[in-house]
Amino acid sequence: MKIKRSERLVDMTHHLLEHPHTLVSLTYYSKKYGSAKSSISEDLSIIKRTFEENGIGIVETLPGAAGGVKYTPTISDSAAKVFIEEICEMMASKERLLPGGYVYLSDLLGNPQILQKIGRIIASQYTEQSVTAVMTVATKGVPIAQAVASNLNVPFVIVRRDSKITEGSTVSINYVSGSSERVEKMELSKRSLPSGSKVLIVDDFMKGGGTVNGMKSMIEEFDSETVGVMVFAEAAYTTGKETDDYTSLIRVDKVDLRNRTMEVSLGSHFD
Amino acid sequence: MKIKRSERLVDMTHHLLEHPHTLVSLTYYSKKYGSAKSSISEDLSIIKRTFEENGIGIVETLPGAAGGVKYTPTISDSAAKVFIEEICEMMASKERLLPGGYVYLSDLLGNPQILQKIGRIIASQYTEQSVTAVMTVATKGVPIAQAVASNLNVPFVIVRRDSKITEGSTVSINYVSGSSERVEKMELSKRSLPSGSKVLIVDDFMKGGGTVNGMKSMIEEFDSETVGVMVFAEAAYTTGKETDDYTSLIRVDKVDLRNRTMEVSLGSHFD
Repeated sequence: MKIKRSERLVDMTHHLLEHPHTLVSLTYYSKKYGSAKSSISEDLSIIKRTFEENGIGIVETLPGAAGGVKYTPTISDSAAKVFIEEICEMMASKERLLPGGYVYLSDLLGNPQILQKIGRIIASQYTEQSVTAVMTVATKGVPIAQAVASNLNVPFVIVRRDSKITEGSTVSINYVSGSSERVEKMELSKRSLPSGSKVLIVDDFMKGGGTVNGMKSMIEEFDSETVGVMVFAEAAYTTGKETDDYTSLIRVDKVDLRNRTMEVSLGSHFD
Repeated sequence: MKIKRSERLVDMTHHLLEHPHTLVSLTYYSKKYGSAKSSISEDLSIIKRTFEENGIGIVETLPGAAGGVKYTPTISDSAAKVFIEEICEMMASKERLLPGGYVYLSDLLGNPQILQKIGRIIASQYTEQSVTAVMTVATKGVPIAQAVASNLNVPFVIVRRDSKITEGSTVSINYVSGSSERVEKMELSKRSLPSGSKVLIVDDFMKGGGTVNGMKSMIEEFDSETVGVMVFAEAAYTTGKETDDYTSLIRVDKVDLRNRTMEVSLGSHFD
Protein backbone atom coordinates (compact mmCIF):
# COMPACT_ATOMS: atom_id res chain seq x y z
CA MET A 1 0.00 0.00 0.00
CA LYS A 2 1.26 3.43 -0.90
CA ILE A 3 1.37 5.82 2.02
CA LYS A 4 0.79 9.56 1.72
CA ARG A 5 3.52 12.09 2.42
CA SER A 6 1.73 13.47 5.47
CA GLU A 7 1.58 10.04 7.11
CA ARG A 8 5.14 9.22 6.13
CA LEU A 9 6.32 12.43 7.77
CA VAL A 10 4.61 11.56 11.05
CA ASP A 11 5.83 7.96 11.12
CA MET A 12 9.40 8.79 10.01
CA THR A 13 9.64 11.53 12.64
CA HIS A 14 8.66 9.00 15.29
CA HIS A 15 11.03 6.36 13.93
CA LEU A 16 14.02 8.72 13.79
CA LEU A 17 13.35 10.03 17.30
CA GLU A 18 13.25 6.46 18.64
CA HIS A 19 16.52 5.53 16.91
CA PRO A 20 19.06 8.26 17.59
CA HIS A 21 22.63 7.79 16.34
CA THR A 22 21.45 4.98 14.07
CA LEU A 23 22.03 4.85 10.32
CA VAL A 24 18.72 3.97 8.66
CA SER A 25 18.87 3.13 4.95
CA LEU A 26 16.52 4.95 2.61
CA THR A 27 15.59 1.50 1.30
CA TYR A 28 14.09 0.70 4.70
CA TYR A 29 11.70 3.66 4.48
CA SER A 30 11.12 3.18 0.77
CA LYS A 31 10.00 -0.41 1.36
CA LYS A 32 8.02 0.37 4.48
CA TYR A 33 5.94 3.02 2.72
CA GLY A 34 6.00 1.67 -0.84
CA SER A 35 7.39 5.00 -2.00
CA ALA A 36 10.21 5.97 -4.35
CA LYS A 37 13.53 6.88 -2.77
CA SER A 38 13.24 10.33 -4.31
CA SER A 39 10.03 10.90 -2.33
CA ILE A 40 11.71 9.64 0.84
CA SER A 41 14.58 12.05 0.23
CA GLU A 42 12.15 14.94 -0.06
CA ASP A 43 10.43 13.84 3.18
CA LEU A 44 13.78 13.74 4.93
CA SER A 45 14.69 17.24 3.81
CA ILE A 46 11.45 18.53 5.33
CA ILE A 47 12.18 16.66 8.57
CA LYS A 48 15.79 17.87 8.56
CA ARG A 49 14.75 21.49 8.17
CA THR A 50 12.02 21.26 10.81
CA PHE A 51 14.30 19.50 13.31
CA GLU A 52 16.95 22.18 12.85
CA GLU A 53 14.57 25.13 13.04
CA ASN A 54 12.97 23.79 16.21
CA GLY A 55 16.14 22.69 17.98
CA ILE A 56 15.17 19.02 17.90
CA GLY A 57 18.45 17.80 16.47
CA ILE A 58 20.48 17.15 13.36
CA VAL A 59 19.35 14.89 10.51
CA GLU A 60 22.21 13.87 8.21
CA THR A 61 21.81 12.07 4.92
CA LEU A 62 24.83 10.01 3.89
CA PRO A 63 24.94 9.19 0.18
CA GLY A 64 25.90 5.93 -1.52
CA ALA A 65 25.01 2.27 -1.22
CA ALA A 66 26.07 2.11 2.43
CA GLY A 67 24.39 5.43 3.11
CA GLY A 68 21.19 6.39 4.80
CA VAL A 69 19.89 8.87 7.31
CA LYS A 70 21.01 9.50 10.87
CA TYR A 71 19.37 11.54 13.60
CA THR A 72 21.52 13.09 16.31
CA PRO A 73 19.67 14.67 19.25
CA THR A 74 21.14 18.04 20.12
CA ILE A 75 20.17 21.13 22.04
CA SER A 76 21.38 24.65 21.38
CA ASP A 77 23.64 26.30 23.95
CA SER A 78 21.05 28.99 24.52
CA ALA A 79 18.21 26.51 25.12
CA ALA A 80 20.44 24.49 27.45
CA LYS A 81 21.32 27.64 29.37
CA VAL A 82 17.69 28.72 29.77
CA PHE A 83 16.78 25.27 31.06
CA ILE A 84 19.65 24.96 33.53
CA GLU A 85 18.95 28.49 34.79
CA GLU A 86 15.43 27.31 35.62
CA ILE A 87 16.88 24.33 37.47
CA CYS A 88 19.25 26.63 39.35
CA GLU A 89 16.26 28.61 40.58
CA MET A 90 14.54 25.44 41.74
CA MET A 91 17.73 24.37 43.49
CA ALA A 92 18.45 27.55 45.38
CA SER A 93 15.81 26.85 48.00
CA LYS A 94 16.98 26.53 51.58
CA GLU A 95 14.73 23.49 52.08
CA ARG A 96 17.14 21.56 49.88
CA LEU A 97 20.10 22.15 52.14
CA LEU A 98 21.11 19.07 54.11
CA PRO A 99 23.64 18.54 56.90
CA GLY A 100 27.22 18.35 55.58
CA GLY A 101 26.54 20.74 52.72
CA TYR A 102 24.68 18.18 50.62
CA VAL A 103 21.74 19.20 48.53
CA TYR A 104 18.44 17.33 48.17
CA LEU A 105 18.04 16.53 44.48
CA SER A 106 15.84 13.42 44.43
CA ASP A 107 12.74 15.25 43.22
CA LEU A 108 14.57 16.82 40.27
CA LEU A 109 16.36 13.57 39.42
CA GLY A 110 13.11 11.63 39.69
CA ASN A 111 11.33 13.79 37.11
CA PRO A 112 11.43 12.18 33.65
CA GLN A 113 11.01 15.46 31.76
CA ILE A 114 13.92 17.09 33.60
CA LEU A 115 16.06 13.97 33.18
CA GLN A 116 15.37 13.84 29.47
CA LYS A 117 16.63 17.42 29.08
CA ILE A 118 19.70 16.82 31.25
CA GLY A 119 20.44 13.73 29.18
CA ARG A 120 20.04 15.71 26.00
CA ILE A 121 22.39 18.47 27.17
CA ILE A 122 25.13 16.07 28.28
CA ALA A 123 24.80 13.86 25.20
CA SER A 124 24.96 16.91 22.92
CA GLN A 125 28.49 17.59 24.07
CA TYR A 126 29.67 14.09 23.17
CA THR A 127 28.02 13.42 19.83
CA GLU A 128 31.40 13.32 18.03
CA GLN A 129 33.39 11.25 20.54
CA SER A 130 32.11 7.78 19.58
CA VAL A 131 31.13 7.04 23.17
CA THR A 132 30.34 3.30 23.48
CA ALA A 133 29.13 3.24 27.10
CA VAL A 134 27.99 5.55 29.88
CA MET A 135 29.16 4.78 33.42
CA THR A 136 27.87 5.94 36.77
CA VAL A 137 27.85 4.89 40.40
CA ALA A 138 24.76 3.63 42.22
CA THR A 139 22.22 4.96 43.09
CA LYS A 140 21.67 8.60 42.33
CA GLY A 141 23.71 8.68 39.15
CA VAL A 142 21.63 5.96 37.51
CA PRO A 143 18.76 8.11 36.18
CA ILE A 144 21.23 10.57 34.65
CA ALA A 145 23.25 7.75 33.07
CA GLN A 146 20.09 6.27 31.61
CA ALA A 147 18.97 9.62 30.17
CA VAL A 148 22.38 10.27 28.60
CA ALA A 149 22.69 6.71 27.28
CA SER A 150 19.24 6.93 25.76
CA ASN A 151 20.21 10.11 23.87
CA LEU A 152 23.49 8.56 22.70
CA ASN A 153 21.85 5.18 22.07
CA VAL A 154 24.57 3.25 23.92
CA PRO A 155 24.35 1.03 27.02
CA PHE A 156 25.06 2.28 30.53
CA VAL A 157 26.83 0.43 33.34
CA ILE A 158 26.41 0.87 37.07
CA VAL A 159 29.35 0.72 39.47
CA ARG A 160 28.33 -0.30 42.99
CA ARG A 161 29.74 0.37 46.40
CA ASP A 162 28.23 -2.83 47.76
CA SER A 163 28.59 -6.23 46.22
CA LYS A 164 25.41 -7.90 45.05
CA ILE A 165 24.93 -11.55 44.23
CA THR A 166 22.98 -10.65 41.11
CA GLU A 167 26.05 -9.24 39.35
CA GLY A 168 28.09 -12.39 38.91
CA SER A 169 31.88 -12.00 39.09
CA THR A 170 33.00 -8.45 39.63
CA VAL A 171 36.16 -6.41 39.37
CA SER A 172 36.70 -4.33 42.46
CA ILE A 173 38.98 -1.37 43.08
CA ASN A 174 39.77 0.81 46.05
CA TYR A 175 39.43 4.56 46.00
CA VAL A 176 39.69 7.44 48.41
CA SER A 177 36.36 8.99 49.24
CA GLY A 178 37.14 12.71 49.42
CA SER A 179 34.34 13.56 51.77
CA SER A 180 35.29 11.03 54.42
CA GLU A 181 38.97 10.56 53.51
CA ARG A 182 38.46 6.86 53.88
CA VAL A 183 39.55 4.16 51.51
CA GLU A 184 36.44 2.58 50.06
CA LYS A 185 35.67 -0.10 47.55
CA MET A 186 33.67 -0.06 44.32
CA GLU A 187 32.75 -2.95 42.08
CA LEU A 188 31.62 -3.53 38.54
CA SER A 189 30.33 -6.72 37.02
CA LYS A 190 33.10 -8.26 34.94
CA ARG A 191 30.97 -8.92 31.91
CA SER A 192 29.33 -5.52 31.83
CA LEU A 193 32.03 -3.57 29.96
CA PRO A 194 33.99 -4.95 26.96
CA SER A 195 37.65 -3.98 26.75
CA GLY A 196 38.35 -1.09 24.41
CA SER A 197 35.19 0.75 25.46
CA LYS A 198 35.05 4.53 25.20
CA VAL A 199 33.32 5.57 28.38
CA LEU A 200 31.53 8.75 29.40
CA ILE A 201 31.32 9.08 33.21
CA VAL A 202 28.31 10.90 34.66
CA ASP A 203 27.19 11.51 38.21
CA ASP A 204 24.66 13.56 40.13
CA PHE A 205 26.79 15.48 42.61
CA MET A 206 30.55 15.90 42.92
CA LYS A 207 32.15 17.02 46.13
CA GLY A 208 35.77 15.92 46.36
CA GLY A 209 35.97 14.01 43.11
CA GLY A 210 37.07 10.76 44.76
CA THR A 211 34.23 8.72 43.32
CA VAL A 212 34.92 9.98 39.81
CA ASN A 213 38.60 9.12 40.23
CA GLY A 214 37.55 5.66 41.34
CA MET A 215 35.48 5.22 38.20
CA LYS A 216 38.44 6.32 36.07
CA SER A 217 40.61 3.63 37.67
CA MET A 218 37.82 1.14 37.12
CA ILE A 219 37.73 2.01 33.42
CA GLU A 220 41.49 1.39 33.21
CA GLU A 221 40.99 -2.01 34.83
CA PHE A 222 38.67 -2.84 31.95
CA ASP A 223 41.33 -1.75 29.38
CA SER A 224 39.02 1.03 28.35
CA GLU A 225 39.23 4.77 27.94
CA THR A 226 37.52 7.64 29.76
CA VAL A 227 36.17 9.96 27.10
CA GLY A 228 34.77 12.55 29.48
CA VAL A 229 33.32 13.29 32.90
CA MET A 230 30.18 15.32 33.39
CA VAL A 231 28.33 15.89 36.64
CA PHE A 232 24.92 17.40 37.18
CA ALA A 233 26.05 19.55 40.11
CA GLU A 234 29.37 20.21 41.80
CA ALA A 235 30.20 21.64 45.19
CA ALA A 236 32.42 24.49 43.97
CA TYR A 237 33.18 25.51 47.56
CA THR A 238 35.08 22.25 48.15
CA THR A 239 38.79 22.93 47.84
CA GLY A 240 41.45 20.43 46.90
CA LYS A 241 39.41 18.44 44.40
CA GLU A 242 41.06 15.23 43.33
CA THR A 243 40.23 15.76 39.69
CA ASP A 244 39.83 18.82 37.49
CA ASP A 245 39.12 17.01 34.28
CA TYR A 246 35.32 17.31 34.30
CA THR A 247 32.48 19.67 33.54
CA SER A 248 29.38 20.45 35.56
CA LEU A 249 25.96 21.75 34.62
CA ILE A 250 25.43 23.48 37.95
CA ARG A 251 27.75 24.96 40.55
CA VAL A 252 26.84 25.13 44.20
CA ASP A 253 29.07 28.11 45.00
CA LYS A 254 28.42 28.67 48.64
CA VAL A 255 26.63 26.93 51.41
CA ASP A 256 25.94 28.61 54.73
CA LEU A 257 24.53 25.94 57.00
CA ARG A 258 24.10 28.31 59.94
CA ASN A 259 21.85 30.71 58.05
CA ARG A 260 20.61 27.98 55.75
CA THR A 261 21.43 29.80 52.56
CA MET A 262 23.00 28.56 49.38
CA GLU A 263 24.26 30.12 46.15
CA VAL A 264 23.83 28.26 42.90
CA SER A 265 25.02 29.20 39.40
CA LEU A 266 25.65 27.77 35.93
CA GLY A 267 28.38 25.14 35.92
CA SER A 268 31.63 24.92 33.96
CA HIS A 269 29.82 23.48 30.93
CA PHE A 270 28.66 27.02 30.23
CA ASP A 271 32.03 28.79 30.80
CA MET B 1 5.23 33.39 10.23
CA LYS B 2 2.87 30.85 8.79
CA ILE B 3 4.20 27.32 8.86
CA LYS B 4 3.36 24.71 6.25
CA ARG B 5 1.39 21.59 7.08
CA SER B 6 4.37 19.29 6.43
CA GLU B 7 6.51 21.11 8.96
CA ARG B 8 3.70 21.36 11.46
CA LEU B 9 3.19 17.59 11.28
CA VAL B 10 6.85 16.92 12.03
CA ASP B 11 7.06 19.40 14.89
CA MET B 12 3.71 18.40 16.43
CA THR B 13 4.65 14.73 16.27
CA HIS B 14 7.84 15.51 18.18
CA HIS B 15 6.02 17.71 20.68
CA LEU B 16 3.32 15.13 21.42
CA LEU B 17 5.88 12.32 21.80
CA GLU B 18 7.84 14.43 24.30
CA HIS B 19 4.73 15.24 26.32
CA PRO B 20 2.80 12.03 26.90
CA HIS B 21 -0.31 12.13 29.10
CA THR B 22 -0.38 15.92 28.83
CA LEU B 23 -3.36 17.93 27.63
CA VAL B 24 -2.12 20.45 25.05
CA SER B 25 -4.61 23.12 23.96
CA LEU B 26 -5.17 23.63 20.24
CA THR B 27 -4.54 27.32 20.92
CA TYR B 28 -0.96 26.47 21.84
CA TYR B 29 -0.32 24.91 18.44
CA SER B 30 -2.41 27.49 16.62
CA LYS B 31 -0.29 30.30 18.09
CA LYS B 32 3.00 28.49 17.66
CA TYR B 33 2.43 27.93 13.95
CA GLY B 34 0.27 30.95 13.14
CA SER B 35 -2.37 28.59 11.76
CA ALA B 36 -6.14 28.37 12.13
CA LYS B 37 -7.47 25.91 14.67
CA SER B 38 -9.28 24.11 11.87
CA SER B 39 -5.92 23.41 10.18
CA ILE B 40 -4.46 22.20 13.48
CA SER B 41 -7.44 19.87 13.88
CA GLU B 42 -6.81 18.40 10.45
CA ASP B 43 -3.12 17.94 11.30
CA LEU B 44 -4.08 16.15 14.48
CA SER B 45 -6.40 13.76 12.69
CA ILE B 46 -3.52 12.77 10.38
CA ILE B 47 -1.24 12.25 13.39
CA LYS B 48 -3.95 10.35 15.26
CA ARG B 49 -4.51 7.97 12.34
CA THR B 50 -0.79 7.42 11.74
CA PHE B 51 -0.07 6.81 15.43
CA GLU B 52 -2.86 4.24 15.59
CA GLU B 53 -1.95 2.45 12.38
CA ASN B 54 1.69 2.17 13.42
CA GLY B 55 1.13 1.22 17.06
CA ILE B 56 2.71 4.42 18.37
CA GLY B 57 -0.13 5.28 20.72
CA ILE B 58 -3.48 6.98 21.10
CA VAL B 59 -4.14 10.63 20.29
CA GLU B 60 -7.36 11.94 21.81
CA THR B 61 -8.95 15.28 21.06
CA LEU B 62 -11.10 16.67 23.85
CA PRO B 63 -13.58 19.34 22.74
CA GLY B 64 -14.53 22.59 24.45
CA ALA B 65 -12.76 25.56 25.97
CA ALA B 66 -10.84 23.39 28.45
CA GLY B 67 -10.14 20.86 25.72
CA GLY B 68 -7.09 20.02 23.71
CA VAL B 69 -5.14 17.02 22.56
CA LYS B 70 -3.55 14.26 24.59
CA TYR B 71 -1.09 11.57 23.53
CA THR B 72 -1.01 8.24 25.40
CA PRO B 73 1.86 5.88 24.55
CA THR B 74 0.59 2.33 24.12
CA ILE B 75 1.76 -0.91 22.61
CA SER B 76 -0.45 -3.65 21.23
CA ASP B 77 -0.56 -6.98 23.07
CA SER B 78 0.84 -8.75 20.04
CA ALA B 79 3.78 -6.34 19.66
CA ALA B 80 4.49 -6.62 23.39
CA LYS B 81 4.41 -10.40 23.14
CA VAL B 82 6.80 -10.52 20.18
CA PHE B 83 9.22 -8.24 22.02
CA ILE B 84 9.15 -10.13 25.32
CA GLU B 85 9.56 -13.43 23.46
CA GLU B 86 12.80 -12.02 22.00
CA ILE B 87 13.92 -11.04 25.49
CA CYS B 88 13.07 -14.54 26.75
CA GLU B 89 15.39 -15.99 24.10
CA MET B 90 18.18 -13.65 25.17
CA MET B 91 17.59 -14.62 28.78
CA ALA B 92 17.61 -18.37 28.38
CA SER B 93 21.38 -18.55 28.11
CA LYS B 94 23.22 -20.59 30.73
CA GLU B 95 25.85 -17.84 31.04
CA ARG B 96 23.23 -15.74 32.80
CA LEU B 97 22.72 -18.26 35.57
CA LEU B 98 24.25 -17.15 38.86
CA PRO B 99 24.71 -18.97 42.18
CA GLY B 100 21.51 -19.05 44.22
CA GLY B 101 19.29 -19.17 41.14
CA TYR B 102 19.69 -15.50 40.31
CA VAL B 103 19.89 -14.36 36.73
CA TYR B 104 22.30 -11.81 35.28
CA LEU B 105 20.18 -9.04 33.77
CA SER B 106 22.42 -5.97 33.91
CA ASP B 107 23.12 -5.92 30.17
CA LEU B 108 19.41 -6.03 29.27
CA LEU B 109 18.50 -3.47 31.93
CA GLY B 110 21.35 -1.21 30.82
CA ASN B 111 20.14 -1.04 27.23
CA PRO B 112 18.06 2.13 26.63
CA GLN B 113 16.14 0.67 23.67
CA ILE B 114 15.09 -2.39 25.65
CA LEU B 115 14.21 -0.28 28.68
CA GLN B 116 12.10 2.06 26.61
CA LYS B 117 10.03 -0.90 25.34
CA ILE B 118 9.70 -2.44 28.81
CA GLY B 119 8.59 0.95 30.10
CA ARG B 120 6.08 1.23 27.30
CA ILE B 121 4.62 -2.22 27.95
CA ILE B 122 4.23 -1.68 31.69
CA ALA B 123 2.88 1.86 31.30
CA SER B 124 0.36 0.66 28.69
CA GLN B 125 -1.35 -1.43 31.31
CA TYR B 126 -1.82 1.50 33.68
CA THR B 127 -2.92 4.32 31.39
CA GLU B 128 -6.38 4.49 33.00
CA GLN B 129 -5.39 4.21 36.66
CA SER B 130 -4.29 7.82 37.24
CA VAL B 131 -0.93 6.69 38.59
CA THR B 132 0.81 9.67 40.22
CA ALA B 133 4.18 8.06 41.05
CA VAL B 134 6.26 5.00 40.22
CA MET B 135 8.19 3.34 43.06
CA THR B 136 11.09 0.94 43.02
CA VAL B 137 13.94 -0.21 45.22
CA ALA B 138 17.59 0.64 44.58
CA THR B 139 19.54 -0.21 42.45
CA LYS B 140 18.40 -2.55 39.71
CA GLY B 141 14.78 -1.43 39.65
CA VAL B 142 15.73 2.19 38.96
CA PRO B 143 16.10 1.98 35.16
CA ILE B 144 12.73 0.22 34.85
CA ALA B 145 11.06 2.78 37.11
CA GLN B 146 12.50 5.60 35.05
CA ALA B 147 11.33 4.04 31.77
CA VAL B 148 7.81 3.48 33.10
CA ALA B 149 7.64 6.94 34.69
CA SER B 150 8.77 8.51 31.45
CA ASN B 151 5.96 6.79 29.53
CA LEU B 152 3.39 7.78 32.16
CA ASN B 153 4.91 11.23 32.59
CA VAL B 154 4.93 11.01 36.38
CA PRO B 155 7.84 11.13 38.86
CA PHE B 156 9.53 8.02 40.24
CA VAL B 157 10.82 7.46 43.77
CA ILE B 158 13.60 5.17 44.92
CA VAL B 159 13.40 3.20 48.15
CA ARG B 160 16.82 2.34 49.57
CA ARG B 161 18.13 -0.42 51.74
CA ASP B 162 20.94 1.78 53.06
CA SER B 163 20.50 5.21 54.51
CA LYS B 164 22.21 8.03 52.64
CA ILE B 165 22.94 11.51 53.94
CA THR B 166 21.78 13.02 50.68
CA GLU B 167 18.15 12.06 51.25
CA GLY B 168 17.32 14.24 54.23
CA SER B 169 14.85 12.81 56.75
CA THR B 170 13.55 9.40 55.83
CA VAL B 171 10.74 7.07 56.80
CA SER B 172 12.01 3.58 57.44
CA ILE B 173 10.16 0.30 57.69
CA ASN B 174 11.16 -3.27 58.40
CA TYR B 175 10.37 -6.12 56.08
CA VAL B 176 11.13 -9.80 55.77
CA SER B 177 13.48 -10.60 52.94
CA GLY B 178 12.12 -13.86 51.56
CA SER B 179 15.40 -15.06 50.15
CA SER B 180 17.32 -14.77 53.40
CA GLU B 181 14.37 -14.86 55.84
CA ARG B 182 15.95 -12.00 57.70
CA VAL B 183 14.27 -8.85 58.87
CA GLU B 184 15.72 -5.96 56.90
CA LYS B 185 15.15 -2.24 56.69
CA MET B 186 14.18 0.00 53.81
CA GLU B 187 13.98 3.77 53.73
CA LEU B 188 12.37 6.46 51.66
CA SER B 189 13.01 10.17 51.81
CA LYS B 190 10.15 11.78 53.68
CA ARG B 191 9.60 14.53 51.17
CA SER B 192 9.70 12.33 48.10
CA LEU B 193 6.09 11.08 48.11
CA PRO B 194 3.08 13.30 48.90
CA SER B 195 0.25 11.69 50.85
CA GLY B 196 -2.62 10.50 48.69
CA SER B 197 -0.30 9.31 45.93
CA LYS B 198 -1.40 6.50 43.63
CA VAL B 199 1.70 4.39 43.28
CA LEU B 200 2.74 1.77 40.75
CA ILE B 201 5.47 -0.52 42.12
CA VAL B 202 7.99 -1.94 39.65
CA ASP B 203 11.09 -4.08 40.13
CA ASP B 204 13.56 -6.06 38.09
CA PHE B 205 13.38 -9.53 39.66
CA MET B 206 11.02 -11.03 42.20
CA LYS B 207 11.91 -14.12 44.17
CA GLY B 208 10.00 -14.35 47.42
CA GLY B 209 8.10 -11.09 47.14
CA GLY B 210 9.39 -9.72 50.45
CA THR B 211 10.78 -6.55 48.91
CA VAL B 212 7.52 -5.82 47.13
CA ASN B 213 5.62 -6.35 50.38
CA GLY B 214 8.02 -3.93 52.03
CA MET B 215 7.28 -1.32 49.41
CA LYS B 216 3.54 -1.80 49.93
CA SER B 217 3.97 -1.14 53.66
CA MET B 218 6.06 1.88 52.81
CA ILE B 219 3.29 3.26 50.60
CA GLU B 220 0.84 2.85 53.50
CA GLU B 221 3.23 4.78 55.76
CA PHE B 222 2.93 7.64 53.28
CA ASP B 223 -0.92 7.49 53.39
CA SER B 224 -0.88 6.47 49.78
CA GLU B 225 -2.30 3.68 47.68
CA THR B 226 -0.65 0.86 45.73
CA VAL B 227 -2.25 0.85 42.29
CA GLY B 228 -0.35 -2.15 40.96
CA VAL B 229 2.82 -4.22 41.08
CA MET B 230 4.69 -5.25 37.96
CA VAL B 231 8.05 -6.98 37.81
CA PHE B 232 10.27 -7.56 34.82
CA ALA B 233 11.03 -11.18 35.76
CA GLU B 234 9.87 -13.52 38.49
CA ALA B 235 11.31 -16.72 39.82
CA ALA B 236 8.25 -18.91 39.25
CA TYR B 237 10.01 -21.89 40.86
CA THR B 238 10.04 -20.15 44.25
CA THR B 239 7.23 -21.50 46.35
CA GLY B 240 5.46 -19.72 49.17
CA LYS B 241 5.56 -16.23 47.70
CA GLU B 242 4.59 -13.53 50.17
CA THR B 243 2.42 -11.73 47.66
CA ASP B 244 0.31 -12.84 44.71
CA ASP B 245 -0.99 -9.47 43.73
CA TYR B 246 1.43 -8.71 40.91
CA THR B 247 2.13 -9.39 37.26
CA SER B 248 5.40 -10.29 35.57
CA LEU B 249 6.64 -9.88 32.01
CA ILE B 250 8.87 -12.94 32.19
CA ARG B 251 8.77 -16.17 34.18
CA VAL B 252 11.91 -18.06 35.08
CA ASP B 253 10.21 -21.44 35.38
CA LYS B 254 13.04 -23.72 36.26
CA VAL B 255 16.66 -23.38 37.21
CA ASP B 256 18.99 -26.35 37.30
CA LEU B 257 22.21 -25.12 38.80
CA ARG B 258 23.94 -28.49 38.53
CA ASN B 259 23.46 -28.75 34.77
CA ARG B 260 23.37 -24.98 34.36
CA THR B 261 20.11 -24.87 32.50
CA MET B 262 17.15 -22.58 32.84
CA GLU B 263 13.64 -22.39 31.43
CA VAL B 264 12.13 -19.02 30.68
CA SER B 265 8.65 -18.15 29.40
CA LEU B 266 6.17 -15.30 29.07
CA GLY B 267 5.06 -13.92 32.42
CA SER B 268 1.60 -13.56 33.95
CA HIS B 269 1.05 -10.26 32.12
CA PHE B 270 0.36 -12.37 29.03
CA ASP B 271 -1.91 -14.95 30.70
